[in-house]
Amino acid sequence: MSLSKKPVTGMKDILPGEMRIREYVTGVIRETYEAFGFTSIETPCVENIANLSSRQGGENEKLIFKILRRGEKLKLDEAKTEADLTDSGLRYDLTVPLVRFYAAHTNELPSPFKALQMGNVWRADKPQRGRYRQFMQCDIDILGEPSNLAEIELILATTTTLGKLGFRDFQIRINERRILKAMAAYSGFGPEDYDTVFIILDKMDKIGLDGVAAELTGHGFSRECVERYTELFAGLQDADDTVAAFQSLTDMLNLAGVLDVEVKDNLAEIIDSVRATKSSDFEIVFDPTLVRGMSYYTGTIFEIAMPQFGGSCGGGGRYDGMVGRFTGREVPACGFSIGFERIILLLMENGFQVTSQGAKVAYLIEKGVSGENLRTVIDKAQQERESGACVLVVRMNKNKKFQKEQLATEGYTQFREFYKNPLK
Amino acid sequence: MSLSKKPVTGMKDILPGEMRIREYVTGVIRETYEAFGFTSIETPCVENIANLSSRQGGENEKLIFKILRRGEKLKLDEAKTEADLTDSGLRYDLTVPLVRFYAAHTNELPSPFKALQMGNVWRADKPQRGRYRQFMQCDIDILGEPSNLAEIELILATTTTLGKLGFRDFQIRINERRILKAMAAYSGFGPEDYDTVFIILDKMDKIGLDGVAAELTGHGFSRECVERYTELFAGLQDADDTVAAFQSLTDMLNLAGVLDVEVKDNLAEIIDSVRATKSSDFEIVFDPTLVRGMSYYTGTIFEIAMPQFGGSCGGGGRYDGMVGRFTGREVPACGFSIGFERIILLLMENGFQVTSQGAKVAYLIEKGVSGENLRTVIDKAQQERESGACVLVVRMNKNKKFQKEQLATEGYTQFREFYKNPLK
Repeated sequence: MSLSKKPVTGMKDILPGEMRIREYVTGVIRETYEAFGFTSIETPCVENIANLSSRQGGENEKLIFKILRRGEKLKLDEAKTEADLTDSGLRYDLTVPLVRFYAAHTNELPSPFKALQMGNVWRADKPQRGRYRQFMQCDIDILGEPSNLAEIELILATTTTLGKLGFRDFQIRINERRILKAMAAYSGFGPEDYDTVFIILDKMDKIGLDGVAAELTGHGFSRECVERYTELFAGLQDADDTVAAFQSLTDMLNLAGVLDVEVKDNLAEIIDSVRATKSSDFEIVFDPTLVRGMSYYTGTIFEIAMPQFGGSCGGGGRYDGMVGRFTGREVPACGFSIGFERIILLLMENGFQVTSQGAKVAYLIEKGVSGENLRTVIDKAQQERESGACVLVVRMNKNKKFQKEQLATEGYTQFREFYKNPLK
Repeated sequence: MSLSKKPVTGMKDILPGEMRIREYVTGVIRETYEAFGFTSIETPCVENIANLSSRQGGENEKLIFKILRRGEKLKLDEAKTEADLTDSGLRYDLTVPLVRFYAAHTNELPSPFKALQMGNVWRADKPQRGRYRQFMQCDIDILGEPSNLAEIELILATTTTLGKLGFRDFQIRINERRILKAMAAYSGFGPEDYDTVFIILDKMDKIGLDGVAAELTGHGFSRECVERYTELFAGLQDADDTVAAFQSLTDMLNLAGVLDVEVKDNLAEIIDSVRATKSSDFEIVFDPTLVRGMSYYTGTIFEIAMPQFGGSCGGGGRYDGMVGRFTGREVPACGFSIGFERIILLLMENGFQVTSQGAKVAYLIEKGVSGENLRTVIDKAQQERESGACVLVVRMNKNKKFQKEQLATEGYTQFREFYKNPLK
């Protein structure tokens, strides 16, 4: 068989320039999240196929890379379906493994447990520019905290991190599953239709309010329902004061008997607390059109919107029901995921450079330098390293000028040359 | 399907305590290797099956986790063998991917290229204590450096790192494939028998010199060959002065016309240079019984031996022929891999603790604190974080004393309590 130089389809090699940025960013992320009391954990990249196919992952479950059973477990002759060939697969997110992890180790973990995970996930998406089949995710989650302290801490930690990475003028958009449902109920949609309605609503930023109305009507919903629904959004879009608009919407839903006052107060407290205590330059706004795909969300949902980047740069929400699926015992849970690969892409597109800490020194050693002379040079290098410098020891090329130019592009600013005849 | 709380067979979850040590160790490794001019790269965890089955990986190729083809490519009805079902797999080491990476990106990389890789690899070994099917490897490699500067730098970088991690009194054992061969040739073995002879020799530390002799004889080799061979090793084992013993052995092999003087001088220079310039507390010794399994080694081979740990804690060597398999153009290459998981195990068994940098402060907030009061508390936490502290903000439990005791085990040393009635 011939050997292939390329990475497998849809995955990429990471060269030193990008790696420097990735390592810098993971460093800032870890340091900032640790200051908020999050602790790192890791789960295997491979999960049991039953956990990956538990319908917690929505569309992502169609994109799983499945791993072939091994040895006696692989009964190729008898296999009729894929399921006969595989009992594990590569994880498609970090949330399902986290919940399994928490279920397995609850007794060894503090409560509430604040987890930080940075790791690769795999999805067999159609390869396209900037999207890869292996990519890093960076999640923080708080398990065991029922109050909105979880949401407030998650949003502050994430936005502080983005601020430290130099991002400005971004938005946190926030909504509540229960407000979404209340608006649908108020308009006359039945609970069985909510999922369909929300999938259409989710397209608002692409097709606009008229487009949403047309799709809902096209789907066979009554004109009365659709009109009542779109009027709610039209009123909010026109509002000058989003705080007042949020108040009057939720008051109305509450009066109509479709929304508990606690839900409204809870969300208001999150928004107010974040506004009052944020340390970075961003806005937090109520966005009644925010849906977020995953069906496991039960309460607040939120997303990072960056003007520099069309789509979302991360998001999360509350998923109180998920731990119970593993343990039978409900545990409140809430998480926020940064779109790590998009952050890296944005930094690279903006020419972001990591400045190195110490001096970068290159030792160029002429080919004949050996024995005692070589030892003296290496000893010198060791001493410079001890005092904090980065010292590259290489043989001198014939074209020394070109070699130095190349080294300069790698950040080497000092050069020391060593010859066989030291007097040269 | 019921959900499984356990990780997949043979893989493990990593809890906060171990993660702290792992992150500390990867930090020290990265910092130290960077001071030697190594730069980080990353390759996908998934590789083309052709590359993984190219016979560069020896026994490891039998342990590959293979990934099922997807969509139209999976022709389950027609599949007769495993090969029909899979076109990729999880990497079993970092060397094969590195060589593919180098072949793909040669023009974008400096020469020599000094690569640092830290990443997971997967092998479907029989699960056993302390050995997992997913584990971290940590490799440094120098590609494009033909001289022994590569070996000297690799050994100094690795041993400096081990020293910074607190390891003392370890040994670097070094040998040369060409000396191994010369000793076999000198004893009368034919080149076709070398591999068999070396596999038996490799058991020396387990079965002793008599055991090796017995196995060689049992294998049908002539008594004369076996006696001549074992006498060589007996002479070396009895030597008081290993430097002199190395000299007289290699001189003899050279005189017999089976070893080039350059090979001997080259190895002597590596040993002498490392001895003269090392910054950590270790020994480097010539070990003529060192074989190392992988067949791709072409020159020097070396291994870390730790008295605290029975086996080897890492190793490496020169593999000049491997890049040529991808590119058709030979590129000299040499690498050194640290046994990352063993290092972690040793540190944990020795009760190693990572001391945190800043203060760790826990804010305990009584349940009723909300609105303006909550914002004031969170604002205070944000300010303490700004000034470098780690601040955990949690709701106060009914059993406050127990909660504080638990937090103390996580390293929290300061506690601030906030009540609904501030005068309480």
